Amino acid sequence: MPVQMELRRIISSVVDDQHVIILKEVDGERAFPIVIGVFEVVSIGRRIRGEETPRPLTHDLILSAIEQLGGELQDVMINDLQDHTYYAKLRVRQAGEMVEIDCRPSDAIPIAVTAQVPIFVNESVLGDVLEE
Amino acid sequence: MPVQMELRRIISSVVDDQHVIILKEVDGERAFPIVIGVFEVVSIGRRIRGEETPRPLTHDLILSAIEQLGGELQDVMINDLQDHTYYAKLRVRQAGEMVEIDCRPSDAIPIAVTAQVPIFVNESVLGDVLEE
Repeated sequence: MPVQMELRRIISSVVDDQHVIILKEVDGERAFPIVIGVFEVVSIGRRIRGEETPRPLTHDLILSAIEQLGGELQDVMINDLQDHTYYAKLRVRQAGEMVEIDCRPSDAIPIAVTAQVPIFVNESVLGDVLEE
Repeated sequence: MPVQMELRRIISSVVDDQHVIILKEVDGERAFPIVIGVFEVVSIGRRIRGEETPRPLTHDLILSAIEQLGGELQDVMINDLQDHTYYAKLRVRQAGEMVEIDCRPSDAIPIAVTAQVPIFVNESVLGDVLEE
């Protein structure tokens, strides 16, 4: 079962240059952290603050490529956790078909924030995290 | 007239964290520099060294999105220079049509290096640079 999540917080440690985003259930209290890179932190931060950038950034480019090739991003899904590594998919509708494109959550999340589409996490992944 | 270029060199200054790539004409001696970010330097460096990454990086994701949506990257083109800013396009063939996707050269170049497609520069851009 997919559970809809929202970006709750970005925690950046200046000392060790570690960045973590906290995703929280939209209809509940469960939450979990994902470690991301500084590039993704900057990208997400700009979206949240609504900053316009004069040139398309890399995550804008992915969305623009999807649109120009006739696709429409529906949502992103964090669908698996293996060996402490999360796996995600961009779910794109094209000509009535659903195309799933594998990616890292650290790309999926800034892309979802930019496109303003829902972020889902598989219930099984959420379970794994909370049991650790 | 498009002129085919190749990546000749990456120059990184540790002191001021500036990174420049030098593109050189394939059939000639003209060359010009493009300033890029540290993220793109890392991405290009990994491609050139042929390092496998366990997860798709952001530039891999763009290529995979293009392919899964039925497109094929033909080449990248640096087509304009305005106010010291370069403009580029990814040229993608999809169902017999050419789709041009605007992007920054600092995305276009790592994508071209990854996909092993040619990098072109408009003759007019090359002229502007060398006359400055």
